[in-house]
Amino acid sequence: MIEDKNPQRTTLENLGEFGLIKHLTKNFGLNQGSSVVGVGDDAAVLDFKDKKTIVTTDMLVEGVHFDLSYMPLKHLGYKSVVVNLSDIYAMNAKATQITVSIAVSNRFPLEALEEFYEGVAMACQIYNVDLVGGDTTSSTTGMLISVTALGTAEENQIVYRNGAKPNDLLVVTGDLGAAYLGLQVLEREKEVFKVNPNNQPDLEPYSYIVERQLKPEARKDIGELLEKLEVKPSAMIDISDGLSSEILHLCEQSDVGCNLFEDKIPLDPTVISAAEEFKMDSTMIALSGGEDYELLFTIDQKDFPKIKGNPNLTVIGHMTEKGEGANLITRGETKIPLSAQGWNSFTS
Amino acid sequence: MIEDKNPQRTTLENLGEFGLIKHLTKNFGLNQGSSVVGVGDDAAVLDFKDKKTIVTTDMLVEGVHFDLSYMPLKHLGYKSVVVNLSDIYAMNAKATQITVSIAVSNRFPLEALEEFYEGVAMACQIYNVDLVGGDTTSSTTGMLISVTALGTAEENQIVYRNGAKPNDLLVVTGDLGAAYLGLQVLEREKEVFKVNPNNQPDLEPYSYIVERQLKPEARKDIGELLEKLEVKPSAMIDISDGLSSEILHLCEQSDVGCNLFEDKIPLDPTVISAAEEFKMDSTMIALSGGEDYELLFTIDQKDFPKIKGNPNLTVIGHMTEKGEGANLITRGETKIPLSAQGWNSFTS
Repeated sequence: MIEDKNPQRTTLENLGEFGLIKHLTKNFGLNQGSSVVGVGDDAAVLDFKDKKTIVTTDMLVEGVHFDLSYMPLKHLGYKSVVVNLSDIYAMNAKATQITVSIAVSNRFPLEALEEFYEGVAMACQIYNVDLVGGDTTSSTTGMLISVTALGTAEENQIVYRNGAKPNDLLVVTGDLGAAYLGLQVLEREKEVFKVNPNNQPDLEPYSYIVERQLKPEARKDIGELLEKLEVKPSAMIDISDGLSSEILHLCEQSDVGCNLFEDKIPLDPTVISAAEEFKMDSTMIALSGGEDYELLFTIDQKDFPKIKGNPNLTVIGHMTEKGEGANLITRGETKIPLSAQGWNSFTS
Repeated sequence: MIEDKNPQRTTLENLGEFGLIKHLTKNFGLNQGSSVVGVGDDAAVLDFKDKKTIVTTDMLVEGVHFDLSYMPLKHLGYKSVVVNLSDIYAMNAKATQITVSIAVSNRFPLEALEEFYEGVAMACQIYNVDLVGGDTTSSTTGMLISVTALGTAEENQIVYRNGAKPNDLLVVTGDLGAAYLGLQVLEREKEVFKVNPNNQPDLEPYSYIVERQLKPEARKDIGELLEKLEVKPSAMIDISDGLSSEILHLCEQSDVGCNLFEDKIPLDPTVISAAEEFKMDSTMIALSGGEDYELLFTIDQKDFPKIKGNPNLTVIGHMTEKGEGANLITRGETKIPLSAQGWNSFTS
């Protein structure tokens, strides 16, 4: 379907790998003070002075993490960057550089890769990060993307997963479950399209949840907000695999338990209505849906007044002694152990 | 064929992604002073003090860059790391950390990934680098590897591609062409095996060239040697795509020309004999074969006495004014313009 979008096609063979990477990255400048040398040598050279270097990497595979029948390539480029930046922000660090590697089959014309890199460029601009390297190669089938994100932070500013203490408050940014429901809407429309290709889907009522799936944002703002509020979380993680799985990571690595209150989980009204439409439980979706890219963190109770009433932050529970386990306290006040139902790409 | 190797198979579905990455990385320790936190949080934390951070990344795709019918997974793990470290050494920097991401289909049992990670671990040990991150995901077909390597260097120690001057000597490490011929031997044996699966190939006469293909080494020693000799190259690059293509990179980025002398190109005797056997020209193989992972650099003529006679280093030519172009001076003293016949994965 990519081929249909653009009548003008340039085959990749003619450009070769050097020509291709040069062509795709020619409009990327260096804006970060820490970027000394970017694309074009054997390696990039960065200068973080006396600060720490933060590194994370993530892979996205066609047919596993994305479906090009409803994922525009520009959005895919944007999302590939954003999901990596989210991990940098989850360390309470500043994201500064990325490398982007893609493997694509010959069926992709140059114009498709240009579209992908437009999305990468847009993410670089909005999040103020520099593209400093990458690799472009052919694949036998489909498209595969590997992004490495780099960031920087003062040592005492970095927040790990292992610092949560009993009685710390559990806080989440934004709202949960939308990206998963957006995916359900897109999958449903794909099935409809297969049966009736002339059907024009009306995605308007689902615009929020579909956008959360196709063009998620990373919470660059939260580190800045917390700094302003003078709050340093005791532990932090980003929500890529569903709230439940991330809470269990915090509990395991901090050696604590947790009480999560079902009625506190922030849900957008469209998530509630779409969940009803799909006959799904919205709490289950928030717990196990994934791809929200919100931040989940714990703070000392004494910091509560500083964050109270902030529309970006919701207290959804508190940490306990390890022996109490990690539990969901339902609306009916039943205590249910949380289980990791996070997404596993190896089960089909 | 991977399945045949190991009667004991553990499927990946049962472990899940978290269990898998934990399992595969559990024996990797941190040995570099610059590694603060490795695998296990949202991102790794590194501390390069006041030195520069060097970053490079490369992707390897099954069916494009490697063939599992003759590439043992342990060697593949080793090679995936080495080809990335080579880029760090080409900056005259010290390699310190890597991240390794792999996408594999469900047909790979856990034992296959363990074998791959054994190779990664061996490379980490031999090159003294720490594994600090990565991603493990499923692919719809085949195996794909993405490695990012990090290193560090003092600012004044870093060597770029763009510093070569006219009259600088062009120097290459080791010998060239063996990896490409090793691949030809392996491809030939694969064809023989298809016809007669009971045939036991005798690879003994080809052990050097086959090893150069399956288990290449990066020239960690050269930076150390040059430091000892008190020689700082004016420009440097690693040879991954063939001598010709890399010389052209140096010429283009340094704005100079070059005379390369055919009779000076270092060739192992087994390369010469195997080239004859395959009815190929050994100079062409050195120029365009690729995957040698030797270093190519330029030095000021005044440094010649310091490197003269060193068995690791061969002067193969000299740089000229740009207008003279980049040329091969043949044994018959004919001048032929060099052309980039480096490997292009997009042409099939």
